[in-house]
Amino acid sequence: MTDRHPVTVVGLGAMGREIARVLLEAGHPATVWNRTPSRADDLVAEGATRADTVAQAVTSSPLVMVCVLDYAATRELLEPVAAELAGRTVVQLTTGTPRQARELAAWAAECGIDYVDSGMMATPPMIGSETSQFLYSGDEAAFQRYRPALELLGTSRWFGADAGLASLYDLALLSGMYTMFAGFLHGAAMVGTAGVSAAEFAASAGEWLRAMTASLPYAAAFVDSGDYTTDVQSVEFNKAALDVIVQASVDQGVAPDLVAPIQELLARQLAEGHGEESFDRIIESIRSRPA
Amino acid sequence: MTDRHPVTVVGLGAMGREIARVLLEAGHPATVWNRTPSRADDLVAEGATRADTVAQAVTSSPLVMVCVLDYAATRELLEPVAAELAGRTVVQLTTGTPRQARELAAWAAECGIDYVDSGMMATPPMIGSETSQFLYSGDEAAFQRYRPALELLGTSRWFGADAGLASLYDLALLSGMYTMFAGFLHGAAMVGTAGVSAAEFAASAGEWLRAMTASLPYAAAFVDSGDYTTDVQSVEFNKAALDVIVQASVDQGVAPDLVAPIQELLARQLAEGHGEESFDRIIESIRSRPA
Ligand SMILES: NC(=O)c1ccc[n+]([C@@H]2O[C@H](COP(=O)([O-])OP(=O)(O)OC[C@H]3O[C@@H](n4cnc5c(N)ncnc54)[C@H](OP(=O)(O)O)[C@@H]3O)[C@@H](O)[C@H]2O)c1
Ligand SMILES: NC(=O)c1ccc[n+]([C@@H]2O[C@H](COP(=O)([O-])OP(=O)(O)OC[C@H]3O[C@@H](n4cnc5c(N)ncnc54)[C@H](OP(=O)(O)O)[C@@H]3O)[C@@H](O)[C@H]2O)c1
Repeated sequence: MTDRHPVTVVGLGAMGREIARVLLEAGHPATVWNRTPSRADDLVAEGATRADTVAQAVTSSPLVMVCVLDYAATRELLEPVAAELAGRTVVQLTTGTPRQARELAAWAAECGIDYVDSGMMATPPMIGSETSQFLYSGDEAAFQRYRPALELLGTSRWFGADAGLASLYDLALLSGMYTMFAGFLHGAAMVGTAGVSAAEFAASAGEWLRAMTASLPYAAAFVDSGDYTTDVQSVEFNKAALDVIVQASVDQGVAPDLVAPIQELLARQLAEGHGEESFDRIIESIRSRPA
Repeated sequence: MTDRHPVTVVGLGAMGREIARVLLEAGHPATVWNRTPSRADDLVAEGATRADTVAQAVTSSPLVMVCVLDYAATRELLEPVAAELAGRTVVQLTTGTPRQARELAAWAAECGIDYVDSGMMATPPMIGSETSQFLYSGDEAAFQRYRPALELLGTSRWFGADAGLASLYDLALLSGMYTMFAGFLHGAAMVGTAGVSAAEFAASAGEWLRAMTASLPYAAAFVDSGDYTTDVQSVEFNKAALDVIVQASVDQGVAPDLVAPIQELLARQLAEGHGEESFDRIIESIRSRPA
């Protein structure tokens, strides 16, 4: 494998086009295909080769990167060219569920295609910088073979042979991000009722939330040990705090949609007799119990 | 006012006893009262004066700090001694809603009591260190008069004459914290289905969430301007991401209680025709519209 082996990029949306551009700029001969062909024009002007068909695209390179809307679109594109893909590596960048990743990996294995799944923790302008994280799982030999090219896109992290792991981890981190943003917006709505700007609140909230991330390892220790014995931050104490938050939200005319589920999970733990145990025990109300 | 004026602390639970101790150690003559008198024993051994009645407690100092379970308990204790409290300052540390704070402030004003409300952003061991934040609002002259004593408890922040503001701000910040912790637990439940420990996930999630707090000012700018025009992170894009997160959670046997409300708010924005606008527009679905 030469350092600058050919690559094919299928799908030139906001993400795919940046990925193709970064690989091209690093000197990889790049073949590109997009359903709407005109979206390849600027990349072709920059030196990429336009493929007229998906079959032509995938036979141009040993490494085929796919970045389209979803797994359904991916399957529509790849299933008809399974024979052409045999012996090559597909890196699926499209966002999907772990189950979809595992199913596509199983299909690829049947077809003799090396399959790597990815979760992209980046926005288009971040592609090609260290701040973007690309999570990978699936065929480790294929991942290692193409790692130098993949590292061009951002920091890459390997998770293991289960093709669903990268997506699982990606979605788990995104869950944390979305709930944090949503909680910030809930707080901004609350203080907004007293004329405090969201900008002012963001400054305090940012500092506060950054400080509070220091508690995550302690929460994790409860979860990992399954021992929720505590003498601070009990379910009962926090249930009372959530009661106040929900009541205050309603009083202020802010719908409690984003905080009420936490209150409800705490209420469930309380009803099950765990009032003295740690807040973090609410995880037991959402996760599948071990068999 | 001498530097080390007398203070009275009513309520010696986990928080109240630390507050009394810090004031005592700094040289303030401290009078203490607790419903269960024996809980004052150690403080008395350290130099505090035990009051036998609430009336005796509140007439011992110009500054009366109250830290009991809730506002109902506060009213039970203070209403019978309104006459004795006239001309003194009450600092209410007990957690409650902004409405409860405003109602108690109105009652205090009728009785000629200077009233300051507080939101304590601290746990008992943090009392007396700079890491604890005490938020205050209400009677500013009274706050400034006793500020040196209050600063002993932690960093103090002043919010304004509306007695409900400190509580509002406190609860808004707590909303952000609780949703962040809950989102972390949701993510930990997800990766836990593939055998990843919560401790490992906490390390990644902490770093990720700290980095993501850098986006809060951008979110705030959308909210403050009311202009949600964007070409990244649209409602439609994020709705698709939440669909994947919810589906993946269900696939893995993790109940989506903590992420589904975000999906629902995005769906509502989408249905109202705001698919092209910023994610942050979900705040419009939870907050009261300006009249
Ligand atoms: N944008 C981000 O910040 C970001 C971050 C992380 C992950 N992702 C994920 O990355 C993937 C791509 O995102 P994006 O932002 O690049 O999306 P995008 O700008 O909307 O582009 C979507 C791409 O998919 C193609 N496509 C859609 N349906 C197709 C079909 N049935 N057959 C063939 N091609 C089809 C589109 O082709 P046409 O040009 O012909 O429409 C276009 O190339 C998505 O799974 C997204 O969730 C995006
Ligand atoms: N602990 C924290 O980390 C924390 C943080 C921020 C805010 N807060 C808030 O601070 C306040 C006190 O919390 P805490 O942790 O100190 O609680 P705690 O340890 O449970 O103590 C509760 C105190 O309230 C008294 N009390 C309860 N009901 C009463 C009544 N009807 N009449 C008279 N006294 C009554 C108790 O007296 P007895 O001893 O006789 O039972 C005790 O002194 C609460 O509003 C809490 O939400 C606590």
